Amino acid sequence: MSALTIDGSTRLYGIVGDPISQVKTPQLMNAYFQQQGINAVCVPLQVATATFEASLRGIMALGNIAGLVITVPHKIRACALADALSAQARQVGAVNVLRRDAQGAWFGDMFDGAGLVAGLRDNGFTLKGQHVKQLGAGGSGAAVAFALLAAGAASLTLYDPNGEAAQALAARINAQYPQRPARVSTVPAELQGINLLINCSPIGMKPDDGLPAPFADFDPALQVVDIIMQPPETPLIAHARRAGCRATNGRPMIEGQLTAFLRFFDLYAEASPCRH
Amino acid sequence: MSALTIDGSTRLYGIVGDPISQVKTPQLMNAYFQQQGINAVCVPLQVATATFEASLRGIMALGNIAGLVITVPHKIRACALADALSAQARQVGAVNVLRRDAQGAWFGDMFDGAGLVAGLRDNGFTLKGQHVKQLGAGGSGAAVAFALLAAGAASLTLYDPNGEAAQALAARINAQYPQRPARVSTVPAELQGINLLINCSPIGMKPDDGLPAPFADFDPALQVVDIIMQPPETPLIAHARRAGCRATNGRPMIEGQLTAFLRFFDLYAEASPCRH
Repeated sequence: MSALTIDGSTRLYGIVGDPISQVKTPQLMNAYFQQQGINAVCVPLQVATATFEASLRGIMALGNIAGLVITVPHKIRACALADALSAQARQVGAVNVLRRDAQGAWFGDMFDGAGLVAGLRDNGFTLKGQHVKQLGAGGSGAAVAFALLAAGAASLTLYDPNGEAAQALAARINAQYPQRPARVSTVPAELQGINLLINCSPIGMKPDDGLPAPFADFDPALQVVDIIMQPPETPLIAHARRAGCRATNGRPMIEGQLTAFLRFFDLYAEASPCRH
Repeated sequence: MSALTIDGSTRLYGIVGDPISQVKTPQLMNAYFQQQGINAVCVPLQVATATFEASLRGIMALGNIAGLVITVPHKIRACALADALSAQARQVGAVNVLRRDAQGAWFGDMFDGAGLVAGLRDNGFTLKGQHVKQLGAGGSGAAVAFALLAAGAASLTLYDPNGEAAQALAARINAQYPQRPARVSTVPAELQGINLLINCSPIGMKPDDGLPAPFADFDPALQVVDIIMQPPETPLIAHARRAGCRATNGRPMIEGQLTAFLRFFDLYAEASPCRH
């Protein structure tokens, strides 16, 4: 393995979010660049909501930027900055990756849903036939909801403190899956008949957040997913572990996506020991 | 020495220019970060003239950007983006470093001139009492001109294909050094009475550039400086070496500035083996 060296010809990848300190993508991508001898680097880019469009357009105008990974809370707004979108990104209405082609046009795609499904299967979760309660209807939430239904979930109940966002996502899901209508719930902690609980809200990232809803003790048969990465054990994961539930944080979702990211960025074809 | 690792908490430094592949600042700064265990990284940022203000403002709005090094052709325009300037930057009318303070304000300074003078002295050049011919009156040229006069040069003759830029710089120099007036020449290759020739123009960076002026053979006593870094031996340097002149490229100028950059970015105080 060669060292990670950065010179004037190094191509840039960035992961865009706010907060940013929790991200693991730079470590994963840079390890791959080192291993393969690719002259590229992935750096964290902390972009505040107030300056999102201005900052992103400025970064996308750099001559040596090759691609961006987009994370919370920017996945929906980043959609509007792409020149073209994959079918998946159009369906979800959000992107988590953007790449620049040789002509300078930016293409967006969304791998959160497929990454999560792959990661959950690798970790022994059952998805087919399950009744899902999902907290959070933002960019990641939309991707997750579509992917769980595509993976065979029997029903989906959505909660978001922004009721309009939840209703809008439910309407888009119902247009796609009329046989398995998504319902909107106004009671986040209600879990009757639910086999899989998934948190796609940011509640649990900050030290004092606590549980994303005032849950009673979980049934040990409930499967629990929190897509948060940092802290590794959120209050929700701790609550699930205490009840003996199968539970995971967002790490399998991200790890399941690394290969997808590298393919999307066309870095597989470049990976040969002859490059430096 | 620890490895250069980048995580979500890594602070960013960038070197801004166009072209960018020739820069050496990332290698020098990142070696220092590794050696000292500072969680920071310096990356190249290729910013085109057409998108300069938009790109820079976007990058300066990043929550985790700590500082920027500015190189050709942006040193003059970058001045206008700073909230405050050092006396040196105000005098020169250009910056080559910008740092963000804790309140988010950006402060600019200019070390090209001092860096060059230190680098030339280290390399055995004589500056005091010398008659200088300088090609190029841009941002670096302004810094170099003021620094050479401050170091005791006896006279300065300026040439720039943009005659107005040369006249404007000469007027600013003459306001500062009325006893040693800067002259503007319209004949770039004229060297009568000159002891030191310095190229601050970009001519010599591109493969087909050739000499920055149609020089005759040099007098071996002429001292020749080309502030270009890449290629390491420009046509001007090759011409000087063939004549047996003392000659150097821009490397001493940059190496002479690294310590100044690190002090400016307040990275000296942080350098302790306890940090990671």
